[in-house]
Amino acid sequence: MTATPPQDDVAAHDVLRVNTVLDRLLPSVADVDNDVASLASAMRYAVLGGGKRLRPRLVYAAGRAAGADLDVLDRPAAAVELIHAFSLIHDDLPALDDDCLRRGRPTVHVRYDEATAVLAGDALLALAFEVLAGSFADAARATRWVCLLARATGAFGMIGGQMIDLAGESRRLELSALERLHRLKAGALIYAAVMCGAVAGRLGEAEQRTLGNFGEEIGLAFQIQDDVLDATAPTRTLGKRQGADERRGKSTYVTLLGVQAAATEAAKHLQLALRHLAPLEERGKALAALAEQMVERTF
Amino acid sequence: MTATPPQDDVAAHDVLRVNTVLDRLLPSVADVDNDVASLASAMRYAVLGGGKRLRPRLVYAAGRAAGADLDVLDRPAAAVELIHAFSLIHDDLPALDDDCLRRGRPTVHVRYDEATAVLAGDALLALAFEVLAGSFADAARATRWVCLLARATGAFGMIGGQMIDLAGESRRLELSALERLHRLKAGALIYAAVMCGAVAGRLGEAEQRTLGNFGEEIGLAFQIQDDVLDATAPTRTLGKRQGADERRGKSTYVTLLGVQAAATEAAKHLQLALRHLAPLEERGKALAALAEQMVERTF
Repeated sequence: MTATPPQDDVAAHDVLRVNTVLDRLLPSVADVDNDVASLASAMRYAVLGGGKRLRPRLVYAAGRAAGADLDVLDRPAAAVELIHAFSLIHDDLPALDDDCLRRGRPTVHVRYDEATAVLAGDALLALAFEVLAGSFADAARATRWVCLLARATGAFGMIGGQMIDLAGESRRLELSALERLHRLKAGALIYAAVMCGAVAGRLGEAEQRTLGNFGEEIGLAFQIQDDVLDATAPTRTLGKRQGADERRGKSTYVTLLGVQAAATEAAKHLQLALRHLAPLEERGKALAALAEQMVERTF
Repeated sequence: MTATPPQDDVAAHDVLRVNTVLDRLLPSVADVDNDVASLASAMRYAVLGGGKRLRPRLVYAAGRAAGADLDVLDRPAAAVELIHAFSLIHDDLPALDDDCLRRGRPTVHVRYDEATAVLAGDALLALAFEVLAGSFADAARATRWVCLLARATGAFGMIGGQMIDLAGESRRLELSALERLHRLKAGALIYAAVMCGAVAGRLGEAEQRTLGNFGEEIGLAFQIQDDVLDATAPTRTLGKRQGADERRGKSTYVTLLGVQAAATEAAKHLQLALRHLAPLEERGKALAALAEQMVERTF
């Protein structure tokens, strides 16, 4: 029996691993036409300039729980982060959230220009699917991944959530609408990250569903905690402007419930998530630790 | 021996067919959350509001030449049109070409708003890949389609071309740069449309390559003809503002060579394209007719 490495080592390993994969998959400035250099540069700036890589870590952790090889997980881990980066670039655009700070640095449309930001987001989204489909070893699995991530991105996922979010700037959302928003805007991609790992291994359908249920709850818990942090953590720690939601008049769990009750909600959905992992016993331990870290984070 | 139906009937059949598929695949306003209704509406407005469906027709025609079943071709035919529609929405945005007229109607950001236009484009791109991967019958073919269309869209395809196009607003492009631009911006997706059909049938690698070479040349010929029409056809016929390229100071085949020489270039690349079809003999006839129609069109 080998000793289990400490969670911090696994986290550092997974972050390093996906960063290496992303660096290799992104177009290099030298590879492209001169006039396309700033596009490649903006894509790299958006993806490689920091970030906690929580979604790729979920792919790896769920994949380990499912008994998948790490090599198989590199492509979905990278793809989910490319999609996350695409969504941040477009959400930050002047026509949407009009944010100038992200991960402690100017947003892409500030650092480059708006046209480049639109196109760099588009190119990252396309690249995500190219990366998934490039895994010819098992085409059935690749199409499953494409389906999961395309669905999580579109009108019934993240982008649908973003529309509800924009609607929430002009009127107060009910708590039920806000939960739907969070399940779509952040939850859908987090769920898909967990499922990309789950389907890469040797689990039966029931166990895959269990992981999916875990993914849904952890996605919601994560986003509620995000509301809490937006209201309480300093800009310097967040890497984006503190209190941005409130200034925009957005409904959040904090504006509807207050900080304390919102934090309690996050903790409740974390517990629901962890309960779904119980049938996996020992195999679910690392995933549980990551889930706790995602919700109990301070930035 | 059955009589070959006239080309016009085939064209009308294919247009109707892909329109039916698109209508079914696009989210309906009734299916989505209230706050997402305008997104679904914008997606339908952009895709179903006209268009010549040349790219889907290329998928069907190349697929027929390759001996593929029409049923198999519906998904790539629809996906290529979804990607085309996505690219038009984003190209028309104020930060990019700032166009207010498309297919004879207000562009999406004028009819809805800029945020909805960004997100509707994103959602169409994601939907295209969901559609391709939803074809579980043959996962190997589905991943091939995803690769072809993702590559055609990204930094080494359409979006790369759009970057060169934007660079061309601030300086005069050489003819070689312009050819590269056209091969990427319009050519890459047209090539991919042909290849999606080519790989769906029973062709050997050499014959697939032949169709690919045809696709590259017809894509370039088509875009040169587009330059000619932008300079010569009336706004009413074009469905978009005539002379838009010139007003923006863009380099085109017409600004560099004049109308006559540009038309000659288009005809030259059409001939190169047709020559690639020769080995397919009778099977290439319908594709050749479509190619001629694409380049000899008047709008």
